[in-house]
Amino acid sequence: MNNSHNPSTFTQIETSLGYACLDLDREQRRGIPETIYGAGKTNAQLIAIMHKLNEAGQNAFATRVSAEQAEVVIESLPTAVYDSISRTLSSDIAPLPEPAGKVALLCAGTADLPVAEEAAITARRMGARVEKIYDVGVAGLHRLLNRLPQFSNARAIIVVAGMEGALPSVVAGLVSRPVIAVPTSIGYGTAQGGLTALHAMLTSCASGITVVNIDNGFGAGVAAAIINRQSY
Amino acid sequence: MNNSHNPSTFTQIETSLGYACLDLDREQRRGIPETIYGAGKTNAQLIAIMHKLNEAGQNAFATRVSAEQAEVVIESLPTAVYDSISRTLSSDIAPLPEPAGKVALLCAGTADLPVAEEAAITARRMGARVEKIYDVGVAGLHRLLNRLPQFSNARAIIVVAGMEGALPSVVAGLVSRPVIAVPTSIGYGTAQGGLTALHAMLTSCASGITVVNIDNGFGAGVAAAIINRQSY
Amino acid sequence: MNNSHNPSTFTQIETSLGYACLDLDREQRRGIPETIYGAGKTNAQLIAIMHKLNEAGQNAFATRVSAEQAEVVIESLPTAVYDSISRTLSSDIAPLPEPAGKVALLCAGTADLPVAEEAAITARRMGARVEKIYDVGVAGLHRLLNRLPQFSNARAIIVVAGMEGALPSVVAGLVSRPVIAVPTSIGYGTAQGGLTALHAMLTSCASGITVVNIDNGFGAGVAAAIINRQSY
Amino acid sequence: MNNSHNPSTFTQIETSLGYACLDLDREQRRGIPETIYGAGKTNAQLIAIMHKLNEAGQNAFATRVSAEQAEVVIESLPTAVYDSISRTLSSDIAPLPEPAGKVALLCAGTADLPVAEEAAITARRMGARVEKIYDVGVAGLHRLLNRLPQFSNARAIIVVAGMEGALPSVVAGLVSRPVIAVPTSIGYGTAQGGLTALHAMLTSCASGITVVNIDNGFGAGVAAAIINRQSY
Amino acid sequence: MNNSHNPSTFTQIETSLGYACLDLDREQRRGIPETIYGAGKTNAQLIAIMHKLNEAGQNAFATRVSAEQAEVVIESLPTAVYDSISRTLSSDIAPLPEPAGKVALLCAGTADLPVAEEAAITARRMGARVEKIYDVGVAGLHRLLNRLPQFSNARAIIVVAGMEGALPSVVAGLVSRPVIAVPTSIGYGTAQGGLTALHAMLTSCASGITVVNIDNGFGAGVAAAIINRQSY
Amino acid sequence: MNNSHNPSTFTQIETSLGYACLDLDREQRRGIPETIYGAGKTNAQLIAIMHKLNEAGQNAFATRVSAEQAEVVIESLPTAVYDSISRTLSSDIAPLPEPAGKVALLCAGTADLPVAEEAAITARRMGARVEKIYDVGVAGLHRLLNRLPQFSNARAIIVVAGMEGALPSVVAGLVSRPVIAVPTSIGYGTAQGGLTALHAMLTSCASGITVVNIDNGFGAGVAAAIINRQSY
Amino acid sequence: MNNSHNPSTFTQIETSLGYACLDLDREQRRGIPETIYGAGKTNAQLIAIMHKLNEAGQNAFATRVSAEQAEVVIESLPTAVYDSISRTLSSDIAPLPEPAGKVALLCAGTADLPVAEEAAITARRMGARVEKIYDVGVAGLHRLLNRLPQFSNARAIIVVAGMEGALPSVVAGLVSRPVIAVPTSIGYGTAQGGLTALHAMLTSCASGITVVNIDNGFGAGVAAAIINRQSY
Amino acid sequence: MNNSHNPSTFTQIETSLGYACLDLDREQRRGIPETIYGAGKTNAQLIAIMHKLNEAGQNAFATRVSAEQAEVVIESLPTAVYDSISRTLSSDIAPLPEPAGKVALLCAGTADLPVAEEAAITARRMGARVEKIYDVGVAGLHRLLNRLPQFSNARAIIVVAGMEGALPSVVAGLVSRPVIAVPTSIGYGTAQGGLTALHAMLTSCASGITVVNIDNGFGAGVAAAIINRQSY
Repeated sequence: MNNSHNPSTFTQIETSLGYACLDLDREQRRGIPETIYGAGKTNAQLIAIMHKLNEAGQNAFATRVSAEQAEVVIESLPTAVYDSISRTLSSDIAPLPEPAGKVALLCAGTADLPVAEEAAITARRMGARVEKIYDVGVAGLHRLLNRLPQFSNARAIIVVAGMEGALPSVVAGLVSRPVIAVPTSIGYGTAQGGLTALHAMLTSCASGITVVNIDNGFGAGVAAAIINRQSY
Repeated sequence: MNNSHNPSTFTQIETSLGYACLDLDREQRRGIPETIYGAGKTNAQLIAIMHKLNEAGQNAFATRVSAEQAEVVIESLPTAVYDSISRTLSSDIAPLPEPAGKVALLCAGTADLPVAEEAAITARRMGARVEKIYDVGVAGLHRLLNRLPQFSNARAIIVVAGMEGALPSVVAGLVSRPVIAVPTSIGYGTAQGGLTALHAMLTSCASGITVVNIDNGFGAGVAAAIINRQSY
Repeated sequence: MNNSHNPSTFTQIETSLGYACLDLDREQRRGIPETIYGAGKTNAQLIAIMHKLNEAGQNAFATRVSAEQAEVVIESLPTAVYDSISRTLSSDIAPLPEPAGKVALLCAGTADLPVAEEAAITARRMGARVEKIYDVGVAGLHRLLNRLPQFSNARAIIVVAGMEGALPSVVAGLVSRPVIAVPTSIGYGTAQGGLTALHAMLTSCASGITVVNIDNGFGAGVAAAIINRQSY
Repeated sequence: MNNSHNPSTFTQIETSLGYACLDLDREQRRGIPETIYGAGKTNAQLIAIMHKLNEAGQNAFATRVSAEQAEVVIESLPTAVYDSISRTLSSDIAPLPEPAGKVALLCAGTADLPVAEEAAITARRMGARVEKIYDVGVAGLHRLLNRLPQFSNARAIIVVAGMEGALPSVVAGLVSRPVIAVPTSIGYGTAQGGLTALHAMLTSCASGITVVNIDNGFGAGVAAAIINRQSY
Repeated sequence: MNNSHNPSTFTQIETSLGYACLDLDREQRRGIPETIYGAGKTNAQLIAIMHKLNEAGQNAFATRVSAEQAEVVIESLPTAVYDSISRTLSSDIAPLPEPAGKVALLCAGTADLPVAEEAAITARRMGARVEKIYDVGVAGLHRLLNRLPQFSNARAIIVVAGMEGALPSVVAGLVSRPVIAVPTSIGYGTAQGGLTALHAMLTSCASGITVVNIDNGFGAGVAAAIINRQSY
Repeated sequence: MNNSHNPSTFTQIETSLGYACLDLDREQRRGIPETIYGAGKTNAQLIAIMHKLNEAGQNAFATRVSAEQAEVVIESLPTAVYDSISRTLSSDIAPLPEPAGKVALLCAGTADLPVAEEAAITARRMGARVEKIYDVGVAGLHRLLNRLPQFSNARAIIVVAGMEGALPSVVAGLVSRPVIAVPTSIGYGTAQGGLTALHAMLTSCASGITVVNIDNGFGAGVAAAIINRQSY
Repeated sequence: MNNSHNPSTFTQIETSLGYACLDLDREQRRGIPETIYGAGKTNAQLIAIMHKLNEAGQNAFATRVSAEQAEVVIESLPTAVYDSISRTLSSDIAPLPEPAGKVALLCAGTADLPVAEEAAITARRMGARVEKIYDVGVAGLHRLLNRLPQFSNARAIIVVAGMEGALPSVVAGLVSRPVIAVPTSIGYGTAQGGLTALHAMLTSCASGITVVNIDNGFGAGVAAAIINRQSY
Repeated sequence: MNNSHNPSTFTQIETSLGYACLDLDREQRRGIPETIYGAGKTNAQLIAIMHKLNEAGQNAFATRVSAEQAEVVIESLPTAVYDSISRTLSSDIAPLPEPAGKVALLCAGTADLPVAEEAAITARRMGARVEKIYDVGVAGLHRLLNRLPQFSNARAIIVVAGMEGALPSVVAGLVSRPVIAVPTSIGYGTAQGGLTALHAMLTSCASGITVVNIDNGFGAGVAAAIINRQSY
């Protein structure tokens, strides 16, 4: 991987849509293709950006797309495919990289699935082989301990949990691999929309855990994929 | 235990000290002797209240007493005894009840000891036999699992933990007994003085946990002792 | 009650539904049957899990089920019964345990009823005889004092209150029994969705109160039933 | 009482000290003499302002003065008198108004005394007869109920409480008089420096309570005195 | 006004509706008739309670009633009258008290009107003559100063303001009468649903202001009416 | 003023001290000389940086320097001069620019002086003529209105206020000039260390106010000086 | 610009609508015409106020108007024009001032456009020539650096950004002009509805930035226009 | 690296000190030696634990040790060495691993040095070659861009920043490597003790950043070293 840019030599590959400058160079510069954050975009904007990316020879990938949005976009852009669990929309004109390495993905509860799936699809698109281990919350510890061999040798371990967010502490205490914790907004009252899980994960007694924003499966997928790809 | 009071028949056993009405009747009414919250009291007030309680034939017990306060009080009240770990001061004129039943007391880290000890001494003074199981944080799960037989049959289980406060969830997932969680102010940054542990414990995925205030070893000790004494 | 498990001997009674590992062993291990948290589950998931539990010979019980969800589930699972006040759905294939002991349930206002009823039904399902004492807020103290004989001899007292959450302090000052406080999200402005009642209950001047999450009638019911069943 | 000012006719009675414009007209305009907030003032500023007020023929009164500050000021201003409980300093050159009407002052705990005394001295200086009823927390309800006749006929009732701040709700439910609640910073953990008591008092289920800032005995004293003086 | 109750002689005037104990004695005890908080009540509950109060010979008054709720109630209870601005519903069977004394009501902006009107109607029902002075925000100071003679001689002054909540400070600096501040939830971003206005009012540099909960026009109306009625 | 830099031509004027890269080019680039934030720097670091700046031909200016720090620095750097009110330390080797234009500086209370003086000295060093108008809080409105002619024609108006932070709203409602509000940490309880004043200023009903961080007199001084210098 | 008012000579140009006192004098006094905050106003109020302003010979301008509201207003007031991106509604009877000076407007992301456009239209209406530079977030730094010549010589620079709000720090580090930062509510989780961007901008390491409320494009536009117009 | 444990085969290597169970097996299980969190430990505890670790043949390393603590420990344990900038204490009986791979460490300001150095020493002890790039805050962007070649090829990049915490966003936008952000508590007012930097980093517009707790240089060092060691 080559990072030879220098501020005075930024290659000027941008395509202006009036309201958006697509950073088409991002894939080369960061190894992460420009990803579209769907929430708050109009259907027209979504269609135009995905189309422009495809036109420039890149795959297009959007997160946080509602089923309603997806339906409209697909009408205009028949190559687009919607995944209703992760709520992501992709329009690929080139094959994805072959899966390699290993990213383990642990998830505490059924309600955390959309976030976990967003992480899975993101890491997979960036070349990671993803191993999913779902519904292994700390209140039934044996379910987790039984699966230890499946995740203890992964290049990166993503742990998705809401409520009190205790799972990453328990996992990190068992392994020697990078653990990326993803708090979710699942829970009520003192769960405070995920803030409690987030703060708990950050103040974990198990050292070496790093954390991403609440419900940010995408960010965890990117981070895990970057770690994964430099270790094989 | 008899609770036959009625608002019109409250026995008027109060002793006025000008600034304080001692509720000498509390022991009979609630089964909890009047306990003195030492923080913010002057030495003179502390001495006077403890003396008054002894004079009325009751044992005196104060929490959150600093070593400096204790030294001064003991000079005036030679029956007083200070416990420097739990920071409690007691002046007993009658023997404590025989220890009975079983209250298990789990503690996640060394720094949580003062809170755990405050809980232990409180429950013991109210008649509980207390079993201490210390330094069993979730980051080294085997330490906890090895001790399961020691706490799984207790009448009440107090779990003291700071930082992310994950221990009560793990414990409650393993037992069928009442679990009382005590968050501590140990930690920094997102630990937020114990608020994160508190909120995490309240939003635990393991059902049936109840929680007391941050660092409130005393409250947990009282609650556990009340539960313990009605089950043997 | 027997708690002889050891991490290496966890009986592997789990049924995988792809997205959910049912912890069918929980009833034996914790004395609490697996309970389904309905919020955020799809109708299909709800039906599948309840059906699976019944199939495994266990009663099924779900909380936080909307009337709309319930209607759909009942169509597929005719044994299911919906309680519209507590918003719980149950599908029982075995009789509930006989009511025994005594759990008192105090409730401050009419708007707190759904939370109180969730606590009542939960405790009842776990074997407790439940005594309900409703609409006894502190602003009309005589209503509470008149009912003292009804709750002062209970094995556990659940106190449900929103707004400033003062009721548990007043109740705990009158009795010698375990008091479990349940803050509700009733109120506006500084009620802050129940956070003020929660924090008030935790910082109560009456010692020995323990607290559960905002609107967590289920958790209070479980805790009270556990305490109740070990005291008779 | 006459309030005939009009913005164009503000009498220009100010004395400039460079860093402070004394509002010597305030007493006539508001019926409240300029009061000095001692915290954060240097000794030199405190002496100069009190001296200037006396020179202008007004009594001087400062709140939140530490014992150390007071000692220095008194050296330079021998007419000054320090009250160590309320932490107020006064230098009076004219007699205070005769006590009239009735302001009742209830206080939940010993630790709340400094705030209560600040309220008492403030109301007294503004002409109120003050009736003090101390150590009547809600955890021992009978202590409060026994004193009802003493406060139920007051022109204004100040209720000082820390921790969960439940006392004002209980008091307001018993009387038909104006209740002014003063939260204090007494407590720890979820007491949050008085914020919980404050928010609890504001969200009280007993209607008609008004509230002042945390530890603001002075403000409560002013408000009560204003109400008191217009009702006799 | 007579306050001769004593806990043992509380007159037992309650009517049970199963879910609600009406405190029919409240008017005699507190001088405030039982008021119904409409939010969160079902139509059936609202109708039953209002009907029960009328049956007991009392006027019925409910706050926070939506237009939809009101329409349904009025169908069953033709005596009921809805005020759409204050969102209150009343069913009176006896004439209201004659207006007496003077409560001034200042309001900062048009959007604060519903809260102001709730205060006005509440104070009026409890016997106060109410003088309304609307749209006098601090950003156009002359509008306020021009109206000073209208409010400076009131028995109580209610000041309703959202956003930064500066109006009560300015008003209290001009008068010698009791000022009750009502923060509203008007504003966005850092207005934080009224919390900023609330905290600003509590920390006002003008002494003697007391404050009620966010949007609590009802509470301010009660407090002002109580102060007003004891001063004439 | 010329801003012709381009990322590829950043003049490389930095002097490395190992722990600090001095941005000696900043004055040319931004028109603001590198200013030293004294808090948290060791005396040795402070001396070295100020010395290095002087050596490079620039005046040195440090904010948030304690009297103790200043004393030590001056011993090693005899050109340094300490201002004890603003807590700033300067070591100038070239004359300051002539004062020009007009920046008005309003301050609500005596306790806000250090912040106001930091703003004054900063603006003055950057070439502004500063007009100070102190102790003009909103609780005595006439003091402010009398001074209107002094500040209404300034090029920029800095308004410093703590507690409820109402002064900027009132000022901005009276003038047509840029108003920069500086919240201070003065106050207690709900003042929340200045957060309430900050949020109040940001949600002001008077449009066009901009705000800086709590106690950030330096930032306000810089902003006002920049605005001032481009308008004459 | 002339600011010769004095509280006693406020010209009394107000038109009362019962619920609103229009401050028709504001344009002369502050150089800012009365602007209508549309949110929370009824259609009838909006129509009446805009009509009244036009009748008084002034242009009318309303912010935060929904498309639905706009449609209804335009039916009654055919001169009204709606801008759907900025969500503003204007009814002009006189030409706007000629654009002069230069206000640069930088915007980090597509989702921040409505806030940016509100700022643009506001500044333009007050006479500023506005230069828009959109989609220049810090994650693709070259996009920003390429545009430096376009904004480095503006009289005022508005920087609109959500999420972590880093753009203003980077911009202010490159220029010598006044920078006004506008945090937006774009983002999720720890973005906390814009509070994180707001607090980040306020604590920027680049000195001289001033900040307005979350999503307050209007306020930034007013502030920038005021600065702009006094510098040419 | 081998992770073959299974809950039933946890090797029982613990040494009990009464108050602490040393997890001597941690190094083998997690590749991280037991590290001592010095804050809140007594000198006696610190000495005993370090001694016990050395006795068991392991190096001992403690973080957050004050200079005073260190001095006392070194007296009893002459092998101990204190690093005053990172505030760490180590007592090594075996050589550290050879430095390998590359961890880049960027730091925004001088005041962030202690946190950065804690990260550096931690990563180095776990075998990483560490490249330090200090004082490269975003307000002087050229300082950062000049150093790009030094950090763009690291296996892991740690970015330490306080105040608004913008540096990680800018860095992550330039590279394709794992970025671990460490917020520090540097700043005042809205910096909120590091919470603003933390939340800003979590809500970064640059994807793939992961974050640790405020001031947690140790945690970042562990995470970076784990990532580093699996990539060479």
